[in-house]
Amino acid sequence: MEATQNYLQKEKDRFLEELFELLRMPSISADPNYKDQVIATAEMVKERMEEAGLENLALFETTGYPVVYGDKLVDSSLPTILVYGHYDVQPAEPLDLWDSPAFEPEIRDGKIYARGACDDKGQMYMHVKAVEAMIKCDELPCNVKFMIEGEEEVGSGGLSGFVKENHDLLAADIILVSDTSIISKDVPSITVGLRGLAYMEVEVTGPDHDLHSGVYGGAVANPINVLSQMINKLMDDKGKITIDGFYDDVEIVSEADREKINLRPLDIEGYKSRLGIKDVNGEDGYTTIERTSIRPTLDVNGIWGGYIGEGAKTVLPSQAFAKISMRLVPHQSSEKISALFEDYFKKIAPEYVTVKVTAHHGGEPLVVPSDSIGYRAAEAAMEKTFGIKPIPVRSGGSIPIISLFKQELGIDSILMGFGFDTDLIHSPNEHYGLWNFYKGIETIPYFYSYFAEGHSK
Amino acid sequence: MEATQNYLQKEKDRFLEELFELLRMPSISADPNYKDQVIATAEMVKERMEEAGLENLALFETTGYPVVYGDKLVDSSLPTILVYGHYDVQPAEPLDLWDSPAFEPEIRDGKIYARGACDDKGQMYMHVKAVEAMIKCDELPCNVKFMIEGEEEVGSGGLSGFVKENHDLLAADIILVSDTSIISKDVPSITVGLRGLAYMEVEVTGPDHDLHSGVYGGAVANPINVLSQMINKLMDDKGKITIDGFYDDVEIVSEADREKINLRPLDIEGYKSRLGIKDVNGEDGYTTIERTSIRPTLDVNGIWGGYIGEGAKTVLPSQAFAKISMRLVPHQSSEKISALFEDYFKKIAPEYVTVKVTAHHGGEPLVVPSDSIGYRAAEAAMEKTFGIKPIPVRSGGSIPIISLFKQELGIDSILMGFGFDTDLIHSPNEHYGLWNFYKGIETIPYFYSYFAEGHSK
Repeated sequence: MEATQNYLQKEKDRFLEELFELLRMPSISADPNYKDQVIATAEMVKERMEEAGLENLALFETTGYPVVYGDKLVDSSLPTILVYGHYDVQPAEPLDLWDSPAFEPEIRDGKIYARGACDDKGQMYMHVKAVEAMIKCDELPCNVKFMIEGEEEVGSGGLSGFVKENHDLLAADIILVSDTSIISKDVPSITVGLRGLAYMEVEVTGPDHDLHSGVYGGAVANPINVLSQMINKLMDDKGKITIDGFYDDVEIVSEADREKINLRPLDIEGYKSRLGIKDVNGEDGYTTIERTSIRPTLDVNGIWGGYIGEGAKTVLPSQAFAKISMRLVPHQSSEKISALFEDYFKKIAPEYVTVKVTAHHGGEPLVVPSDSIGYRAAEAAMEKTFGIKPIPVRSGGSIPIISLFKQELGIDSILMGFGFDTDLIHSPNEHYGLWNFYKGIETIPYFYSYFAEGHSK
Repeated sequence: MEATQNYLQKEKDRFLEELFELLRMPSISADPNYKDQVIATAEMVKERMEEAGLENLALFETTGYPVVYGDKLVDSSLPTILVYGHYDVQPAEPLDLWDSPAFEPEIRDGKIYARGACDDKGQMYMHVKAVEAMIKCDELPCNVKFMIEGEEEVGSGGLSGFVKENHDLLAADIILVSDTSIISKDVPSITVGLRGLAYMEVEVTGPDHDLHSGVYGGAVANPINVLSQMINKLMDDKGKITIDGFYDDVEIVSEADREKINLRPLDIEGYKSRLGIKDVNGEDGYTTIERTSIRPTLDVNGIWGGYIGEGAKTVLPSQAFAKISMRLVPHQSSEKISALFEDYFKKIAPEYVTVKVTAHHGGEPLVVPSDSIGYRAAEAAMEKTFGIKPIPVRSGGSIPIISLFKQELGIDSILMGFGFDTDLIHSPNEHYGLWNFYKGIETIPYFYSYFAEGHSK
C-alpha cells in the first residue's frame, strides 16, 4: 500500500477542496424545501465516484431520495467490500447558534466546520478518496461496491426498499461504514453496538379552537398542561421508563461485561464541563457509559404549543405537540416499543382531551461480533495507523439500516468511524477534524489489505 | 335622545364601513414588526374622533405606543364621562386556522370576522359613533373625554405612565369601558369583577448546546423533560395550584354569594359542544362559573423547545421555554404572586439544570360596586334597549389597567361590554355580531342621559 499512501499524501489538498464543495450542498432530507438540493448532492457524489475510478455508476430511484451506486470489480475470486454511507444531513436549526454558516465550510483550529462535516459527508468521502488511491495506484486488493443513500437522517425508507430488491447487486463479504466515533486520538475504538430507535409524534387536543385564557382558564383543560403531565408520566424519578412492558425484552448484561464496558476511559469532570452541565443525570444504578450504551432511554426531542412569539398572549391553546424518541437496546423491537408507547400514551390521557400518536421511522438495536475477519481487519488497520490497538465499544446512537442489512443481505457490518463524540453532529457548529479526515483516509486501505489477507487464509 | 337614535339609524352603513377600515390595520402591539401599522392606527383613530366632533385631539407620546386623546366639554357643571378603549389587537396566529384573513374583515351570518372585531376596535368604535350622534344632534348631556390606548394586549405600559402624569386632564366622574361581554341577546349583563394577571416566562437550560440524543440521551438531563416535570409540579391532580403561599390572599366568597353567582344561566352541554371538549375540567369543589370568575387559575400559554419542524430530528436540546400565566382574584397581588412563582419555580428546579424566570406585565383583580350612579345608569340603559334588566357578573378575564385607574385617578369604571364569550377573541376567526355592534351604539347614549340624570338628583 506504499504507492497508495504516497498518492493520498500528495493529493490531500484536493481531497479537502472536493469535500468543501460537497459540504456546501444543503442536502437536508427532513425538509421538503430542500428537495432539489438533495438530488443535486446525489448527482455530485455520483460524479465524484466516477472520477475516483469506480464503474457502473447509477442513481437508483427509490420511494424517496436516490441511492448512489458504483463498483470496481477486480477479480471474482477476491472478497467484496460494500461501502455504505449517506449524503444527506440533519437540519441546521437553530441557525443563530452557528459561529459560521452551516453550509459555508470553514477551517478553524484544524477542524472543518459545516453541517455534515462529520455526519456523514466527511466520513463517507474518506472512502471515495481511499478507493480512488488504490485504483489509481493499482493496489485495490478486493472488489468494492459503494451504496450511498440520501435518507439516513429520516429513516432510510428508500434504501430499505432498494436493499430488498437488489440482493444480487449488493452481494458482498462485509459492509464497511464510517458513521461513528473513536474515543480520542490516543484511544482508537471500533463500534460493536448501536442502539435502536422508536420515534413518536404526539398531539394533544383540548378545545377545538384556541380560547381566551381569562374567559375559559380554570374550567377547560389546557392541552399544554396536560401534555406536560403526560410526558411526566413516561418516566419515574429514578429515570426508569414507565411504559408498560418497556423493559420486557431488554438484554441483561452480565456483571463481567458491565465491568468490561466501564473500563473505557471517561473523564466525568471533562464531560460535564464540555457540555456545560452541572451534573450528569440518568437511570439510577447505572454509570454514564452504561446509560449511553446498554440501557434504553426516552427523550423529548421537540415540544410546541400555544403562543411562542415575543411578548405575552393570553391564550388557552387548542393543541400541544411533542416529538418523543426512545433509544433501544438488544433485544427490544422498534415496532413493538412503538406500539407499547402508543397504548400507554393513550391509556394515560385524561378523558377530557383527545390524543393522536404517530410513529416516525425506527430502527433495531445491533451488536456486531468482535471475532470476525472483518473486525480483525479493522483492528489491525487501526493499530497500524494509530500505533495502538482499538477497543470495542457500544455506542448510544442508532444507524437503523445496519440491522436491516444483516437481516436482508445476511452481511455483517464493520463500524469503523473516525469522528469524536465532541464533533457536535446534529448540533450547531458540527465539525470534523482534519486529523480525523486524513487518519480515516490513511487507515481504510489497510482495512482492504488485511481483509483480503484474512479471507485468503 | 330621539334625534340621536334617528341619526344612528340613518348612518349605520357608514359606521360599518369606517369600522372595516380600522379592522384592516394590523395593529399588533406584541410584535415589533408591526410598529408602523400600530402608529398609523392611532392616527386613524384620532382622525375619526375629530370627524366625530371631538376636540383637543392629541396623540400623547408614551414609553410605548401613543394614547389617543380627545374631548367635548359642554358645560363644567355637568358630569364627565371618560371613555377608555384600545386600538391594538392580539397577534393573529395561527394564521392557517382563519376562514378569512385576519385583517380583511368580512361579514358572514351577520357577524364581522376580523382580528379586533370585538376586542376592542368594534366595541371601542361604538363609543366614537354614539358620541358623534349626540354631538351632531346637540343632545350630549355630559362632558366626555376619550382615552384610547395601543398597548392593552401587552400590559398598558405606556398608558400607566400617561395616567400617572395626567390626573387633571383625565379628571372625570366615571370611566366607561366596552371591552367585555354580555351573556346572550336575551340575558344582558354587566361585568362587576375582573381577574388579575401574573404572566411569567421561564427558560430551562441543560447542556450549553444541543446534543445528539443517541450519544448523550440517558446520561444528560433533557430540558424539555425537566420543564414538563416542573410544569406538572405547579398544580396537583385536584386542580389546586401548588405554589407556596399562592392562596394566602384569595378572597373567601360566602356561600350566599356563591349561590348568587351560580344563578347565572350556563348550559354546560352547549358550552362543551361549542368548545369541542368532551368535558369541563378544573379545580375540585367549584362550578364552571366559579372556576372562571372567583377562583385563580394557572395556564401554560405557550411552550417550545428542541426540533419543531417536519420529520424527525434526534436532538437533546440545550433549552426549553414556556409562557405561564395566572389569573388572580381579590385580594391577590400580581407582584406578590409573580415573586412567589419565581421562588417556587426555582425551588423545584433539579440541581442539574439552570432556570431563568422573568415576569411580563401583570394586573390586579378588581370588583366593581353595583350600587353606584354609574352602575345604575348602565343597568337602566341596557334595560331600555334590551327590554330586560342586566345581571351583574364577575368575568374571568383581566383588564389590568382598570384597577390602576381606580388607584391613580380615584375613578370607578363601568364595564358595559356588548360582546359574547363565543366571539373567539384572541383566537382565529374572532368576530363581533352586527347585532351587538348596533345594540351597543344604541345603548350608549342612554347611559349618558341616565348618568347625567343620576348626577343631577
